Amino acid sequence: MQLTDEVRRALTSGRLAHLVTLEPDGTPQVTCVWVGLDGEEIVTGHLFASRKVQNIRRDPRVTLSMEAEGRSHGLDHYLVVHGTARITEGGAPELLQRLAQTYLGPDVRFPPMDTPPPGFITRITAERIGGTGPWQ
Amino acid sequence: MQLTDEVRRALTSGRLAHLVTLEPDGTPQVTCVWVGLDGEEIVTGHLFASRKVQNIRRDPRVTLSMEAEGRSHGLDHYLVVHGTARITEGGAPELLQRLAQTYLGPDVRFPPMDTPPPGFITRITAERIGGTGPWQ
Repeated sequence: MQLTDEVRRALTSGRLAHLVTLEPDGTPQVTCVWVGLDGEEIVTGHLFASRKVQNIRRDPRVTLSMEAEGRSHGLDHYLVVHGTARITEGGAPELLQRLAQTYLGPDVRFPPMDTPPPGFITRITAERIGGTGPWQ
Repeated sequence: MQLTDEVRRALTSGRLAHLVTLEPDGTPQVTCVWVGLDGEEIVTGHLFASRKVQNIRRDPRVTLSMEAEGRSHGLDHYLVVHGTARITEGGAPELLQRLAQTYLGPDVRFPPMDTPPPGFITRITAERIGGTGPWQ
């Protein structure tokens, strides 16, 4: 599905995204990550083949949630994206450096090491939007 | 497992908790909820038998994540609780009124209706703590 402007704005607001992947036994595993957009895909970078990378390779179903600006009926807005993810290899340091501008500040160098590994990028295609806010 | 003081402090800080339950087909479902403590259990209240209540009754595995105070290596802290949940009936308005003091303010009346339904309470027992912070 195509992401609306409100959803795109929430996704690039610099709030942490809570990324849910599924363990081999189906238990939900959660990591907080930085996210950005690459066209219609929601992207996040990892320097190493972490548990979530392994989980996504086995089961591509993911859910991502993040808090958002504004309130309705006194309750804070939040965005939920149900989607499917795929992993591509390489490009993680460049993506993390781009996201660090939003999440840490304009002049921060991240990752801080001299020669970071190429890493992995998780690319999420949204299939259903939930939560509370102008998108729901 | 017993919750440490740092975990208890994060859980009662007034931040939204991202509660993951599992749909019938195993897909993760996320709702942001208010949480509090009742002894060693993490509690959240619902006025109606929502999807998450139905999900928990079918599969008690839940994961809860929330952002927390502080940073390590420039990255914000967050808490992840992997646990099992059970549902009890009644008491939701009183619990929500108690949590509203933390989440909305000391003088807020919540739920706002005159005769709210007794609702349901989700009670989570932590089995494993994750995330980034003084608990990990």
